[in-house]
Amino acid sequence: MSAHKVIGTYLIETYLPLEHAAEAIAGEQSTGTFTAIARETPELRQRFAAEVVSIEELPPTANPDLPGSTRPAPTALRPADGPRAGELSVVKRSGLVRIAFGLDNFGPSLPNLLAAVAGNLFELRQLAGIRLLDLDLPAPFAERYPGPQYGVRGTRELLDRPDGVLLGTIVKPSIGLPPEELRLVVRELAEAGIDFIKDDELMGNPPHSPLADRVAVVTEELDKIAARTGRRPMYAFNITDDLDRMAANHDLVQAAGGTCVMVCVNLVGFTALAWLRERCALPIHGHRAMTGVYTRAPQLGIDYVVWSKLARLAGADHLHTNGLSNKFYETDEEVLRSITAVRTPLLGGYETLPVLSSGQTPGLAPETYRRTNTTDLLVLAGGGIHGHPSGPAAGVTALRAAWSAATSNTDLDKAATQVPALREALDKFGGNRA
Amino acid sequence: MSAHKVIGTYLIETYLPLEHAAEAIAGEQSTGTFTAIARETPELRQRFAAEVVSIEELPPTANPDLPGSTRPAPTALRPADGPRAGELSVVKRSGLVRIAFGLDNFGPSLPNLLAAVAGNLFELRQLAGIRLLDLDLPAPFAERYPGPQYGVRGTRELLDRPDGVLLGTIVKPSIGLPPEELRLVVRELAEAGIDFIKDDELMGNPPHSPLADRVAVVTEELDKIAARTGRRPMYAFNITDDLDRMAANHDLVQAAGGTCVMVCVNLVGFTALAWLRERCALPIHGHRAMTGVYTRAPQLGIDYVVWSKLARLAGADHLHTNGLSNKFYETDEEVLRSITAVRTPLLGGYETLPVLSSGQTPGLAPETYRRTNTTDLLVLAGGGIHGHPSGPAAGVTALRAAWSAATSNTDLDKAATQVPALREALDKFGGNRA
Repeated sequence: MSAHKVIGTYLIETYLPLEHAAEAIAGEQSTGTFTAIARETPELRQRFAAEVVSIEELPPTANPDLPGSTRPAPTALRPADGPRAGELSVVKRSGLVRIAFGLDNFGPSLPNLLAAVAGNLFELRQLAGIRLLDLDLPAPFAERYPGPQYGVRGTRELLDRPDGVLLGTIVKPSIGLPPEELRLVVRELAEAGIDFIKDDELMGNPPHSPLADRVAVVTEELDKIAARTGRRPMYAFNITDDLDRMAANHDLVQAAGGTCVMVCVNLVGFTALAWLRERCALPIHGHRAMTGVYTRAPQLGIDYVVWSKLARLAGADHLHTNGLSNKFYETDEEVLRSITAVRTPLLGGYETLPVLSSGQTPGLAPETYRRTNTTDLLVLAGGGIHGHPSGPAAGVTALRAAWSAATSNTDLDKAATQVPALREALDKFGGNRA
Repeated sequence: MSAHKVIGTYLIETYLPLEHAAEAIAGEQSTGTFTAIARETPELRQRFAAEVVSIEELPPTANPDLPGSTRPAPTALRPADGPRAGELSVVKRSGLVRIAFGLDNFGPSLPNLLAAVAGNLFELRQLAGIRLLDLDLPAPFAERYPGPQYGVRGTRELLDRPDGVLLGTIVKPSIGLPPEELRLVVRELAEAGIDFIKDDELMGNPPHSPLADRVAVVTEELDKIAARTGRRPMYAFNITDDLDRMAANHDLVQAAGGTCVMVCVNLVGFTALAWLRERCALPIHGHRAMTGVYTRAPQLGIDYVVWSKLARLAGADHLHTNGLSNKFYETDEEVLRSITAVRTPLLGGYETLPVLSSGQTPGLAPETYRRTNTTDLLVLAGGGIHGHPSGPAAGVTALRAAWSAATSNTDLDKAATQVPALREALDKFGGNRA
C-alpha cells in the first residue's frame, strides 16, 4: 500500500449539516451503499474509505438549489446559531470540503480517477449544490502521463519566436470555405506575419472540404512562405474524429509536414486525448468546445481548474481559456483565473500554453497584458482579424502593432498614428481598454 | 451534397425574443462569428448555415438563470402582451427550439456531431437556459456505428433466459474486497441463481485487487457453477481505464472465458466506447457514472434521451437508467422516461437493455413492472441483496420471488408466505409499492 492520496476540493451546498453531506460524498465514492452489508468490516472501511479532510463553512451563496435535494424538517437540523425550533425557515449551508481518496483504490488512471472524485456524486440527494473545484494529484500521475510534448517552449521553438505574445487566428467562415479559397486566406495571413492559424472546431473532415485537401493546400502555401520568408506559421488542423480516424488524420498531417493538430478535448474525452498523445508527433492544440456544460451552472459541475489539469495531464500543448471581454458568458475575472490555472505548474511541470480567443481585438491588448503579466500567450482573433475593414492582412498588422505597443507600454492611440491598420481596427472594434 | 440533416431539439430560456436566441444558436454552430467577415457570402450561408426549423413558446419555468445571460433594457424587447415601457420587469421566455444541421458539415461522426449540436452553445450569453433535449439522427449514423453487438436478445441468449426480468447485483463492498473473498461472494450469488453480477464502478484495476486476479477467481467459480447447474451468470468486469489498457483488459476477460465487460461511458467518452466496440467480442455493460453533471441542473445540459442515444450508437449493450425510488435525485417519472428512451428503437434498431439500479429492493418489483410494462429489464440490487438479513443468497431468492409475483400479478405479501426470504426483505427494505 502506498500512502498516496488524491485530494478533491468541492463547493457543496446542503440543507443537512455540512459534516453529514461531506460524509455522504466520501461514503458514496468509496465503500458505501444505502444499507449495512456483509463483509464491510471496520478494518476494510479504515483502509479504503475516502476521508473528509476539512470543512470550511462559507457565507451563503445566491446559487439555486439542485432538484431532488433533501430538505429535512427544519427543527431536525437547527444549527446552534440558526433558527429556533418552531421557526420554519431552513438554512442552506455552503462549504468548501476537502476529501482524500486513497490512490490505491484506483491508481493513476484518468478515467478511474474520475470514478472516484466525480462518479455518482452529482446525483446525491444530500447535496443542493456540488462543484468539483480542484484536485491535488500525487506524483504517480506524472509517472503515468507524459503530458504536453511541446508546451510553451516547444511551440516557440517550432515558430522561432523565443519571446513575445504569439498571434493567431481561426479560419473564417467557420465552415464552407473551399480548399482553394482556404489557400488564399492562408497565404494572405502568412504573408502578413501571423504565427498561428487554426481550423474552426466545426470544421473536421466534411465531404465539401476533406481534411486531406486542406492539408495539401495549406502545407503547400506554408512551404512557399517558409522558403521565401524563413518563417512558417503553425496551422492547427482539426483532426477531431472517431479515434482510428483521428490517428489517421494525425498521420496525414505529419506526413505532409504539418506542425500542429487540433483536438476538441471534450468531444473525444480526456482518455482519447491521452491515447492520441501516445502516438502523436506534433503539438496538440486543445480546443475547449462544450466545456460550458461543466462550468456554467453555478450549483453543479466541474471547475475549469480541474478540467485544465486533466487536459494537461492527457497531453494538451495548448489549451483554450477564453479571452477578456469575450462574447461568451464568462467574466474577465473567470477568464484570468483560467489563464492562471493553465500557467500554474502541475506536478512540477505540464507547461501548457494558454489560448485566448473569442471576441479578441487589438484594443484588448494593453489590459490583457497588464492583467496576465506575461507574453506566454497565444492570442487568437477570428472576427478581429477577418473582419478588419482592410482585410485579414491588415487585421494581423493591427493586432501585432497593438501587442507590440502593449508590451512596450506605449499608448495604443499613439502607436496607431504610425500604423493605419491599427487605427482602423480601434475605430471599428473599440479602442484601448486598459 | 446529401440532404441529410441532424435535428437538435433544445429547451432554451432567454430574455431576448425567442427567434433571436434561436438564431444565435444556429449562427454560432455553423458559419458565424461576432462580426461580418470577408468570404462569408449569402450563398455560403445558404448552403452551410444551420436552420431554425421551429420555435414553440412554453409556459415560464421556475428554472434559475444561467450566469452571464444578456438582459437587454426592458423596453427594447417589450413583447406585445408584456410589460409596458417604464415597467422594469423583464420577461424571460422559454421555448422548444428545433434546429437543423446539415450532415455534410460534419459527417456521421460522434465527436464532430457534438461540435455542431453542443459545441460552444452552453456558453452563449444570449441564453439564460439551454438544454439539449433530443437529437434526430439520419441514416448515415447507422451505417457508421454498428451499435450494440448483443443487446437484449444476445444477452438473453448468453444467459439462456429467453424471458423474464434479468436479476443482478453489484459486488459490495464497492471496493476493498480481496479476490478470495470475492470468490465466496460470487459463489454464493451464483448458487442462489442470480443472472448477473458486476464490479462496482469504483473497482477498476487497483493493486489490492488486480483485474487479472478477479478474472481468475470469478471465472473459475462461474465455470464450476456452470458445470454443476448448466447456468452461468454473466459477470461484468469493470475494464474502464486508459484505452490501451482497456483493450488489454477486455482481452484478458475474453481469454479467461468471461462473458461481459463493463465500461463507465462518461469516464472514457463516447468516442472511446465506439473504439472499444470495434475490437470487442463481449457485451458492453454501460455504466452511467457522472451523467448527473449533464442532467441535474435544470437550466443547463444534455438530457438523458440524447445521452442514451449516443451511448447506444457507440455500442452499449446495457445502459444504466436508475430505478424507481432510487437513492439519487431523479424522480420516478424521470427514471421511467430514461427506461423508455433506452427501449425506443433508434434508427430502426440499437436494442439496448435498460439497467435499473440504486436502492432497488423486492418491494419495488410490482410498481416497476406495472409502470414499465416489460420484462426486458436488468434489475440490479446491491444493498438490496447484500444487505438481506439472511445474507446475499436470501437476497437473490427474495428478489426473484418478488419479480415472479409481480409478473404473475400475485400480491407480494401473499407470495412472501411461501418464501421466508421475501418476507424478511419486505420487512427490512419496505413492502409492496404498487
